[in-house]
Amino acid sequence: MRFPFKTAALVGKYNSREIGSALLRLADHLAQRGLRVVIATQTAERVGIAGFETATLAEIGHLADLVVVFGGDGTMLSIARILAPYDVSVVGVNQGRLGFLTDVSLDTMIQTLDEMLAGEFVVEDRFLLDAVVRRDGQILHEARAFNDVVVSKGAAGRLIELEVFIDEQFVYSQRSDGLVIASPTGSTAYALSAGGPILHPTLEAIALVPICPHTLSNRPIAVNSHSRVEVLVIHADDCCANLDGQHRLELKVGDRVEVSGSMETVRLLHPKGHSYYDMLRQKLHWGEKL
Amino acid sequence: MRFPFKTAALVGKYNSREIGSALLRLADHLAQRGLRVVIATQTAERVGIAGFETATLAEIGHLADLVVVFGGDGTMLSIARILAPYDVSVVGVNQGRLGFLTDVSLDTMIQTLDEMLAGEFVVEDRFLLDAVVRRDGQILHEARAFNDVVVSKGAAGRLIELEVFIDEQFVYSQRSDGLVIASPTGSTAYALSAGGPILHPTLEAIALVPICPHTLSNRPIAVNSHSRVEVLVIHADDCCANLDGQHRLELKVGDRVEVSGSMETVRLLHPKGHSYYDMLRQKLHWGEKL
Amino acid sequence: MRFPFKTAALVGKYNSREIGSALLRLADHLAQRGLRVVIATQTAERVGIAGFETATLAEIGHLADLVVVFGGDGTMLSIARILAPYDVSVVGVNQGRLGFLTDVSLDTMIQTLDEMLAGEFVVEDRFLLDAVVRRDGQILHEARAFNDVVVSKGAAGRLIELEVFIDEQFVYSQRSDGLVIASPTGSTAYALSAGGPILHPTLEAIALVPICPHTLSNRPIAVNSHSRVEVLVIHADDCCANLDGQHRLELKVGDRVEVSGSMETVRLLHPKGHSYYDMLRQKLHWGEKL
Amino acid sequence: MRFPFKTAALVGKYNSREIGSALLRLADHLAQRGLRVVIATQTAERVGIAGFETATLAEIGHLADLVVVFGGDGTMLSIARILAPYDVSVVGVNQGRLGFLTDVSLDTMIQTLDEMLAGEFVVEDRFLLDAVVRRDGQILHEARAFNDVVVSKGAAGRLIELEVFIDEQFVYSQRSDGLVIASPTGSTAYALSAGGPILHPTLEAIALVPICPHTLSNRPIAVNSHSRVEVLVIHADDCCANLDGQHRLELKVGDRVEVSGSMETVRLLHPKGHSYYDMLRQKLHWGEKL
Repeated sequence: MRFPFKTAALVGKYNSREIGSALLRLADHLAQRGLRVVIATQTAERVGIAGFETATLAEIGHLADLVVVFGGDGTMLSIARILAPYDVSVVGVNQGRLGFLTDVSLDTMIQTLDEMLAGEFVVEDRFLLDAVVRRDGQILHEARAFNDVVVSKGAAGRLIELEVFIDEQFVYSQRSDGLVIASPTGSTAYALSAGGPILHPTLEAIALVPICPHTLSNRPIAVNSHSRVEVLVIHADDCCANLDGQHRLELKVGDRVEVSGSMETVRLLHPKGHSYYDMLRQKLHWGEKL
Repeated sequence: MRFPFKTAALVGKYNSREIGSALLRLADHLAQRGLRVVIATQTAERVGIAGFETATLAEIGHLADLVVVFGGDGTMLSIARILAPYDVSVVGVNQGRLGFLTDVSLDTMIQTLDEMLAGEFVVEDRFLLDAVVRRDGQILHEARAFNDVVVSKGAAGRLIELEVFIDEQFVYSQRSDGLVIASPTGSTAYALSAGGPILHPTLEAIALVPICPHTLSNRPIAVNSHSRVEVLVIHADDCCANLDGQHRLELKVGDRVEVSGSMETVRLLHPKGHSYYDMLRQKLHWGEKL
Repeated sequence: MRFPFKTAALVGKYNSREIGSALLRLADHLAQRGLRVVIATQTAERVGIAGFETATLAEIGHLADLVVVFGGDGTMLSIARILAPYDVSVVGVNQGRLGFLTDVSLDTMIQTLDEMLAGEFVVEDRFLLDAVVRRDGQILHEARAFNDVVVSKGAAGRLIELEVFIDEQFVYSQRSDGLVIASPTGSTAYALSAGGPILHPTLEAIALVPICPHTLSNRPIAVNSHSRVEVLVIHADDCCANLDGQHRLELKVGDRVEVSGSMETVRLLHPKGHSYYDMLRQKLHWGEKL
Repeated sequence: MRFPFKTAALVGKYNSREIGSALLRLADHLAQRGLRVVIATQTAERVGIAGFETATLAEIGHLADLVVVFGGDGTMLSIARILAPYDVSVVGVNQGRLGFLTDVSLDTMIQTLDEMLAGEFVVEDRFLLDAVVRRDGQILHEARAFNDVVVSKGAAGRLIELEVFIDEQFVYSQRSDGLVIASPTGSTAYALSAGGPILHPTLEAIALVPICPHTLSNRPIAVNSHSRVEVLVIHADDCCANLDGQHRLELKVGDRVEVSGSMETVRLLHPKGHSYYDMLRQKLHWGEKL
């Protein structure tokens, strides 16, 4: 981790005037504090910011120590996937209701960033998933996912049949709507809706969560993140793989989707005093002290 | 119920030579026993049966007292939907593993049918669901379902937002993969995989079972079958309605799907000694007496 | 239903000075409106009310048209079980957070009762459960439950083995922590925590919900309330039956617990505009209109 | 791991003549193969074996390289807890249906042990849980568990209120029947019945699984086994802690139960070709290859 932070990059999904002006305010503030400030090229264009250096996300990966992402968890997922290979720390600033990943609010952003520059933050390294799709022995697609890789039925709406292997050992045949393979980060997203367990971010584990399995005793399993999970499409009228719910790939019978924990991690910075459990409790309406 | 049975109709999905010859064997047997025997036109063509009267399913509805369906539960669903308006008794003969609805095996079919002709059977009336899809105030589609009406996400694979009303009272907004609205018959099919309760066939109830709901406290509800369940598509990139997993209809934002218990029922005949619970226990691997 | 109401009874668990004074305030108000006002003997004693007629609950059942219960859902359960045989309408006034059954708040009580006297209310008839425990062919205990009858492991903390029969048909053997047999009213109480479905109050159904069953495919079943559910204790170090979580009875191996829907119902009055689904949504944190 | 095995110990629950003679047969066989054979003192007494060295379990921990346990999973749990501090390899021989931990059958025992002596086996190290119960700041009880530590309601049958902390961070207040804290080994036992995930044995994780939680969004969490889980009894009429379902301790309001992964592990030997997933599939009736 490169600290103290010398170069900060600002990246964001510009979907409101409010975010545009907040982004500019933070850029000015960080420049005044003596940091080199870089704005993502696309962001700068949409916001109409001039007077700051701009760079692509890949360039930002090389240049920046600290990346501030404006947006919700969805924005964070897509930017984190790109920044994962680089040694940067990432902070999420969220306009609305705070997310699992984006937990600095627009209102307190300046103060929180000042604290972070002073070294007051909570660090969390989150690993990603590497996914490979093979067809007829050839690699059809390779990609990274932050939350999950989902193999599921497509438009036809009928259940599919999968065979699952872990480290080349046969696990089960499954008739279901699909299978979620989730990182700890993804364990609070789609996998949770499908009945999966919450995996603490420090756990080197991957959850396999069946979606509406035909066999009622098919329960979620958590396996080592160093395992190689392999899903073979046995029967399907229509089947697809989804990465983070953002990238979709049509699958055919006989295709294999391989997933394992990536060596690459994303380093998230949270405001000081951050607690993973506080966030869970708040997001899931769990009980406070009585 | 018209008994003793005078006219028997044989209907089936011809997917093997074995079924063809069994069907013919039963037709001969019933004719010898003095019954008028009618074969569904399509079935007769595929099996290549001659020498028996043929008729469409609608005609069979008028003519027959007893309809023997050859096939699995899927075949039974599609035929039962068509026969629902008529006063006929239906028996399912299954070639392979017995189904929830088709519980006479090919091997014992002659004996079981003889017992049924002698009045030895267990009767079960199963109600269907009436579904109406409205767009812009107009009826877009009207149909019957035996198992379930499912409003769910389509190919795009992202969660959808629905509003649910029962008898014009607002129930909830739901972000999920979809919602299953199941009859007691359907409660052991897809709804069960989605975490729904089993509803005994004599129960005049409909189950609403959310599929992977975003709100974790969204649990299945069973409501009166005389209720009118209304599902409004609030937000969806891609959404569809599925009836019995056999008919699919694309939905748009703003479409309303209305479901309620039909006045029409299907009268299933089971072999004497049939027990609904025996069947559940066998199909779901529940515990026998210890 | 006896309406207009001429005799009102006030019953309550006196656990605060606030309830005492509220009860007195309502008694005065109803008397001024010309009603005959009766106070439950025990309540009158604890609150120290004089100047009003007092009566036992059984006498109140005969005398009153309208019974106002002060307390939470637990108080309502115990009073409703006693009043079930009588033709009275019951209203619940709750000091704190509104319950499933007690949905008039102390603050608005006078106004709501005035509306009810004017005939503005929503009526809901809720059926109770009849429970019989048999040992060696003899009736050991007979009782009524409003929410549920639970057969479960006792202090020893080991799983028990039960056999379940419905209308003399064998359902399953079950190794579990226990079994909840719930009325629609009870379906939102303990049964819901154990994974059971919500049953709408108008449904003539009973839910059987296994508690931590050893067999993972053991799912909740809803059966007709006219069914007789019979639970036989096959093996247990320690086992008990609980009625509404308020009455506990030790069971031995060989004991039978029989449960069925009672002919007796409790008539709840809700404030006008009451919706069962609004209450569910609020209590379970379900989604409002988006 | 001490290999080749020079000293073998035989331990067992003598509950049938069949086990007695099998134990003797194996003892003779191992002695003929040149191993020093030790029999647990209690076992030798019950079986009536003479002519072999006997020793207590603690002595066996020092003496033996290989311990063969005759019995089911319950027997294995209790013996493994005692042997955990020692450097021994443990094999389970099971008379009846194979268990999760005891997967050598009586019938093939001689052959399997011969293969193991030849180095043909699959090794699995399973960690245990350390549990401490504190009352008024004093340690009341310290113990080891292999499967799980369960804090649950006692005989009174009413829900209890707990506060849960992990590494001194507050997680949630919970009203429930209890909380299961399970090792990966325990994740296929009681925790699974309560709705918990399966944790692969190589995972350094502990699962927290609520039992019938009042708050429906309370889902299982898996945390790092190096975490210290602390459960504080906030409110309970009657409450207890259970270790492996075998040791029970009464708890009072204010008691704290602390659980964390032990440094001690049990080394299980499985027959060559053993697969964890094959065993899961067989025990849970999951789907074979289609």
